[in-house]
Amino acid sequence: MTLIATPQQMHFDAPLPLQSGASLRDYALSFETYGALNAQRSNAVLICHALNASHHVAGAYAGQENSQGWWDNMIGPGKPVDTDQFFVIGVNNLGSCFGSTGPMQVNPDAAQGQVYGADFPVVTVEDWVTAQARLLDALGIEKLAAVMGGSLGGMQALSWALQYPERAAHAVVVASAPNLTAENIAFNEVARRAIVTDPDFHGGHFYQHGVIPKRGLRIARMIGHITYLSDDVMNEKFGRQLREAVLGSAAGYRYSTQEVEFQIESYLRHQGDKFAEYFDANTYLLITRALDYFDPARSYGGSLTQALGRATCKFLLVSFTTDWRFSPKRSREIVKALLDNKRDVSYAEIDAPHGHDAFLLDDPRYLSVVSSYFDSISKEVAA
Amino acid sequence: MTLIATPQQMHFDAPLPLQSGASLRDYALSFETYGALNAQRSNAVLICHALNASHHVAGAYAGQENSQGWWDNMIGPGKPVDTDQFFVIGVNNLGSCFGSTGPMQVNPDAAQGQVYGADFPVVTVEDWVTAQARLLDALGIEKLAAVMGGSLGGMQALSWALQYPERAAHAVVVASAPNLTAENIAFNEVARRAIVTDPDFHGGHFYQHGVIPKRGLRIARMIGHITYLSDDVMNEKFGRQLREAVLGSAAGYRYSTQEVEFQIESYLRHQGDKFAEYFDANTYLLITRALDYFDPARSYGGSLTQALGRATCKFLLVSFTTDWRFSPKRSREIVKALLDNKRDVSYAEIDAPHGHDAFLLDDPRYLSVVSSYFDSISKEVAA
Repeated sequence: MTLIATPQQMHFDAPLPLQSGASLRDYALSFETYGALNAQRSNAVLICHALNASHHVAGAYAGQENSQGWWDNMIGPGKPVDTDQFFVIGVNNLGSCFGSTGPMQVNPDAAQGQVYGADFPVVTVEDWVTAQARLLDALGIEKLAAVMGGSLGGMQALSWALQYPERAAHAVVVASAPNLTAENIAFNEVARRAIVTDPDFHGGHFYQHGVIPKRGLRIARMIGHITYLSDDVMNEKFGRQLREAVLGSAAGYRYSTQEVEFQIESYLRHQGDKFAEYFDANTYLLITRALDYFDPARSYGGSLTQALGRATCKFLLVSFTTDWRFSPKRSREIVKALLDNKRDVSYAEIDAPHGHDAFLLDDPRYLSVVSSYFDSISKEVAA
Repeated sequence: MTLIATPQQMHFDAPLPLQSGASLRDYALSFETYGALNAQRSNAVLICHALNASHHVAGAYAGQENSQGWWDNMIGPGKPVDTDQFFVIGVNNLGSCFGSTGPMQVNPDAAQGQVYGADFPVVTVEDWVTAQARLLDALGIEKLAAVMGGSLGGMQALSWALQYPERAAHAVVVASAPNLTAENIAFNEVARRAIVTDPDFHGGHFYQHGVIPKRGLRIARMIGHITYLSDDVMNEKFGRQLREAVLGSAAGYRYSTQEVEFQIESYLRHQGDKFAEYFDANTYLLITRALDYFDPARSYGGSLTQALGRATCKFLLVSFTTDWRFSPKRSREIVKALLDNKRDVSYAEIDAPHGHDAFLLDDPRYLSVVSSYFDSISKEVAA
C-alpha cells in the first residue's frame, strides 16, 4: 500500500533569534506527517533532511507518479521506521527552497516586496533545531520517541540531543560527523565560488534580473556528486566506458576536450543540468555554510567529550566503510565521546560500496539495523 | 652552488602526425639542459612534466631570485639526480603555455595570423613522447640513461618504455597510474566545465576578445588543489581554523556565505587567483584530456600485463600512502604487470602524509630511494 503524503504548512508569528545575532521576523515551515500520533503523544519521530532534500520524506503525492519521498525506502508502513507504529514528521528547514521561508520568498523588511535573495540571514544547524522544536510545540509534542537524520540531517539529530536533551528519547545519526574536515569545507567553498562568481548570480539578487546562475549550480552539483560516491562504485558503474566509441578511431576516442567522451562525464553533466533546474543558488550557499559551521565541540575548547556531556538520550550511529565524505572515523569520534560520558550507544559500521550515498540506498544490513533499533523503541513507547 | 638555467628552443619543420589523426604542421619545443653530455652520449636523463609545470625543472635563471625549477630539490649538483653525473633534459610539452607550440601561438592555418586557441589539436601522452624523441634525435642522443616523471610525467616515462623500448635503459615512474579512474576523470571534467562555461571562454577563442576565463580557471585550480593534498595534511595545515575570529561572536564566526571564514578557503582562493594569472585555459583542457586518454592497456583488451610486455627497460616505481589521486594501488598494478612479464622492477611505497603533492616535496626516504637508484644507474653508465 502506498502512503499518500500531504504537504502542510505552519506559520510562526514570534520572531526567531538566530545564532548569528540576526533574527527572522516571522516565518513558515513546510512539513508532512505520516501515521497517527498516539493518545500519550509519545510515538513521534522527527526526520531531519540533508542538503537538497525536503519535508517530503516518505509516501507519494496523490495522483503524482514517481513522487516518492527521499527516504521512502526507510519510512512507511512495515518499513524500518514503521508508520503503523510511529507518527513520523518530515520538516523542511529554514533557508531551503521547498516551501519553508527562504531566499526565494518575500523579505518583509524589503521596500518593494522583493524576495530575500542574498539577504536571507545565515542559519545554522542549531537554528534549524530551534525552529523544529517550535513546530513540535505547535503540534503538541513534548518529547520525541526519536529524532533521526543522515549526513547534515544527522548533525541536526545530534544537535537535538544537545539543545533539548529532555525532548528526545533516541537520536539516530547516520553517515554524519561531529563537524566538517578542512577537505569537506574546501569542497563546499569551491561549489560556493562557482555559484557566486557566475555572472548570473548578481550578488545573490538574480531573481530581479530574471536569470538563474545555472552554470555555477551545475558545477556545484557535479562536485557534490563526486563526493557522494566512492571511487569503487564509480569504477564499477562507469569505469572508463565511453559514451559512444568512434568507429575508425583505434582507441574509440573522439579526441575532443569539450564533447562528452566518457560515461562518467555524461552522468555528471546530466546531474548538474537537472539540479540547476530546481535548486535555489542562495539556498545552496546557506545550507553548505550550515554544514561548515556545525561544530558542537567548538565552545568546549575542541573537546567533543565535554560537548556531548549534555546529551542524555540513547543513540544509534551508523556509518558506511566507503563514505569518504563522512567517514566511519568521524562517527567513531561521536561514539567515543558518548561512551566517555557513559551514554547508551549502539553503533553499526556497514561494509557498503556506495560511499556517502549509501545512507539513502537499500542495503539490507543497514535497513535491518535501523529496523531492529526502532522495534525496541516501539516496545519502549508501548510500555 | 646554484645551477644557472638557460631556456632553449628547437624548431621542427617536419609535420608531427598525432594519435587523433590530425597533425601539427610544424612546431617548436622549449627545453633546458643541466650538466654535460658525456663522450659516449650515454648519461642523458629526460624529465617529463605534469599538469602545470614546464621545461624549467632545475636551477634558477640568472638574476632572477626565486626562479627555482619545479623539481629543483630532486635535480642538481649532488642531488638525487646528480647533474655532476648526468646530462638532464627538461622539455615543455606541446599544447602547454610555457614556450612550446600551444594554443596561445599563431596557427599557421588561420587566415589572419590568429592564435590556435581551441583549434589546437588534442595531444596525447604518446604524442608528447614522440615529440620528445625527435628532440633527442636533434640533440644526438640515441639512448637515455633514464626517463623520469611524476604524476602525468610518470605516464610519459611509462609510455617511453612502450613506444621506444630500445631508447631508455631505465624508467622512473613516481606517483603515477596506468590510467585514470572514473573519479579522476570526473574531477577533470568538472574543472573543464567550469572553464568552458565561463562566459569569457568564448568557445576557446577568448584571446581575440581581450579577456581570459579567470572564473573557470580559478575553480579548476581550487578543485585540483583539493585533490593534490591528503585529508590529513589539510586538517593539520588548516583544520577548522578561522582566518580571523570575530570579537563578540560566541563561536568567532562572522556568519557569511560569501566572505572568507576559514583558513582553507583563503588558501584555495589564493591558489585559484594566482593560477588564473598565468595559466592558459585551453592548455588546461588539453592537458587534463591527455590524462584522461592515457590507457596503454586499452588496445590490449584491458590487459596491462599484455600492454607492458613491450617494455624492456628497468623500472623504479614510487608511490605515497596518502595519495588518493594516484594511490599506491595504481602503482602496484604497474608493478604487477611488469613482474608478470619478468621485468626488473624496484618499488617503494613511501608512508608520507602529503597526498599527491608528496612527489614534489622533501621527504628524506623518497629522495634517498631515488638517489640510490640513480647511483646504480651512474655505475652502469660509467661501466
